[in-house]
Amino acid sequence: MSIETKFRKLGTDNAPGQEVRQSSGDIDKMLIGAPLSGRPVDFSHGDVDAHTPTPGSFELFTEGYALGGAQAYTEYRGNIGIRELIAPRLAEFTGAPVHAADGLIITPGTQGALFLAVAATVARGDKVAIVQPDYFANRKLVEFFEGEMLPVQLDYAGSGEGAAGLDLSQLEDAFKAGAKVFLFSNPNNPAGVVYSAAEIRQIAALATRYGATVIADQLYSRLRYAGARYTHLRAEAIDEDNVVTIMGPSKTESLSGYRLGVAFGSKAVIARMEKLQAIVSLRAGGYSQAVLRSWFAEPEGWMDDRIRQHQAIRDDLLSVFRAADGVTASTPQAGSYLFPRLPSLKVSPADFVKILRLQGQVVVTPGSEFSPHTKDSVRLNFSQDHGAAVEAAKRMVTLIERYRA
Amino acid sequence: MSIETKFRKLGTDNAPGQEVRQSSGDIDKMLIGAPLSGRPVDFSHGDVDAHTPTPGSFELFTEGYALGGAQAYTEYRGNIGIRELIAPRLAEFTGAPVHAADGLIITPGTQGALFLAVAATVARGDKVAIVQPDYFANRKLVEFFEGEMLPVQLDYAGSGEGAAGLDLSQLEDAFKAGAKVFLFSNPNNPAGVVYSAAEIRQIAALATRYGATVIADQLYSRLRYAGARYTHLRAEAIDEDNVVTIMGPSKTESLSGYRLGVAFGSKAVIARMEKLQAIVSLRAGGYSQAVLRSWFAEPEGWMDDRIRQHQAIRDDLLSVFRAADGVTASTPQAGSYLFPRLPSLKVSPADFVKILRLQGQVVVTPGSEFSPHTKDSVRLNFSQDHGAAVEAAKRMVTLIERYRA
Repeated sequence: MSIETKFRKLGTDNAPGQEVRQSSGDIDKMLIGAPLSGRPVDFSHGDVDAHTPTPGSFELFTEGYALGGAQAYTEYRGNIGIRELIAPRLAEFTGAPVHAADGLIITPGTQGALFLAVAATVARGDKVAIVQPDYFANRKLVEFFEGEMLPVQLDYAGSGEGAAGLDLSQLEDAFKAGAKVFLFSNPNNPAGVVYSAAEIRQIAALATRYGATVIADQLYSRLRYAGARYTHLRAEAIDEDNVVTIMGPSKTESLSGYRLGVAFGSKAVIARMEKLQAIVSLRAGGYSQAVLRSWFAEPEGWMDDRIRQHQAIRDDLLSVFRAADGVTASTPQAGSYLFPRLPSLKVSPADFVKILRLQGQVVVTPGSEFSPHTKDSVRLNFSQDHGAAVEAAKRMVTLIERYRA
Repeated sequence: MSIETKFRKLGTDNAPGQEVRQSSGDIDKMLIGAPLSGRPVDFSHGDVDAHTPTPGSFELFTEGYALGGAQAYTEYRGNIGIRELIAPRLAEFTGAPVHAADGLIITPGTQGALFLAVAATVARGDKVAIVQPDYFANRKLVEFFEGEMLPVQLDYAGSGEGAAGLDLSQLEDAFKAGAKVFLFSNPNNPAGVVYSAAEIRQIAALATRYGATVIADQLYSRLRYAGARYTHLRAEAIDEDNVVTIMGPSKTESLSGYRLGVAFGSKAVIARMEKLQAIVSLRAGGYSQAVLRSWFAEPEGWMDDRIRQHQAIRDDLLSVFRAADGVTASTPQAGSYLFPRLPSLKVSPADFVKILRLQGQVVVTPGSEFSPHTKDSVRLNFSQDHGAAVEAAKRMVTLIERYRA
């Protein structure tokens, strides 16, 4: 494969935050009516000004900087003192041991962990089971390493209470067909559904039976709403060498600006990830690593407040969307993604996303990024200013009415 | 190639900073005499406590943090305001235009830029010309992307005044054999030699004739000693689409803890690099990017001082090593790497490096990391406390005498 072909598949024009690089093309000719006024909202990522970084994060960075060289130059997998500090917290949270010395790596963001985990498990031609819909980078990573993607459908809309809706027989078929890796996010990005205990146990059982490695992206697993029940795959009956769990403080904790993530579990995979990190970026920023000291040790009540605020935004946005004819949306059980499905429109979904930006001052991520079957949905990260998000959702509904087929 | 095979080549045990993960093995049985006392010196990387970060860097980070979401979430290629600020400075420094909008990317460290540049130019099976000796990650990157390495020898010891000693006919042979990419560091890491104007012009002419892309790693190009003349490849007669230049403030400016680097030049390659960065790490740490505001705008006289201090350390270390029988060392013209060749010893070079650590409190990087032909050399990053570095070099000489064959 030529380098041009390889990179053609890696399109990022519709990726969150890259809208600035889009040209509007001929969209002007399709516009109906005047732009709507209101405070712009960028739903492509969370607003860390509305939901500010964990208290004390900047002070920890400052202390890290004051340590000088000892903090600037760490092992590629991260400072051992910090790994020893957070390993027991991650173990307590996930319900299974985390080995600070050789079972944990600190990475530049959760994206860094995901990249390294896929690179460390997927060789050219390897079959990889990927959920549809799921985080768009999953597909791109498998394609970049020339793996073969075996899609597994997630019926998030019809899954019923407390389950994500994974087609487990399709997952088993993928394993039967030779998939050596299964990569999934829980809660699901974009749909916000959480896998039930039964689903997680089935995934564990199937992976064990077929000797597959599971990469569990649990980035949003701390932000759970009332009634949600969360099951950690790594605490189920599965060989710890076959699971890598990925988390990070970029979302719920609003620490994205520090670029921090972690992967933990399989020692063999973590060792490979570190070897690769040595040539990819050396290490997560040394001073930034110090910020992890506050992770899972936030002030009393802080996380409860954050969850309460997000649940209130979620509920208000769901009310706005559900009041619109033909708009459907599952209730996110965790995380801050909402994935409403839009009714038939006079313009293509891709053009409507541009129209939302041009006429509605609203940036959303097109559903086509997450699955070929979710083109008429859009993803919103509702970790936003509450009032601004509700007003932006109302503008979206106004434009849905304006462009309704 | 299986994933295990692919990663076996990516050994990092001897990489700088990873000594902590080495086991000493049977080295105890080889030890002669008692350990030497003295302040430990880790020559595997610079000491940012001895040569502290650029004045104002922390304040710029603080201002970046205060900007909140606007600084935390930038385009994948980095904040446009910062790109616009540094592009003209890089243009002035290198003598050719730098396009802020589409010819420049900010990366997590210079390592991040190098990884992306190789990934964006080398497809499986592509031939790549690589200098021996040169920065050890170059080889590993080509191997990781399954390129074929065509080595080009650098006779740094016999190059004479003002030249690096590149075998230009071997470079042309590599291009004739189909090499599409040439990757080299200038000043050379580990030898510290600088390419002459004639060498750079020949490289430009050959790359142009054979249509090859050149990746010029100029990480250390600001720290030049008295008498050194530096020629920027990108300012020579070469199509700007065929050159990517890599720099960063991690070394001379001691900003490694912020993980910042840049690549600039070919728009096509930079575009591919950004697409990949979107799935590798998203972006260089947002707040850290703000630190680049001081780059190439340091206080008057600051860089002169830094150069003077390093030149003094260089000269003292050279005196210590050259006084030892059988130790040879070229004079570094730029950068802070010294690459002395050791005489025949009773132990292998690899074991001697371990002995230096165990008995001399001195960490160096084995020459075998840089070329198969430099096994009996060791690399020292002499950006250290002056007095401690000289004492450490003396301990090295004492141990050379003790283990002399």
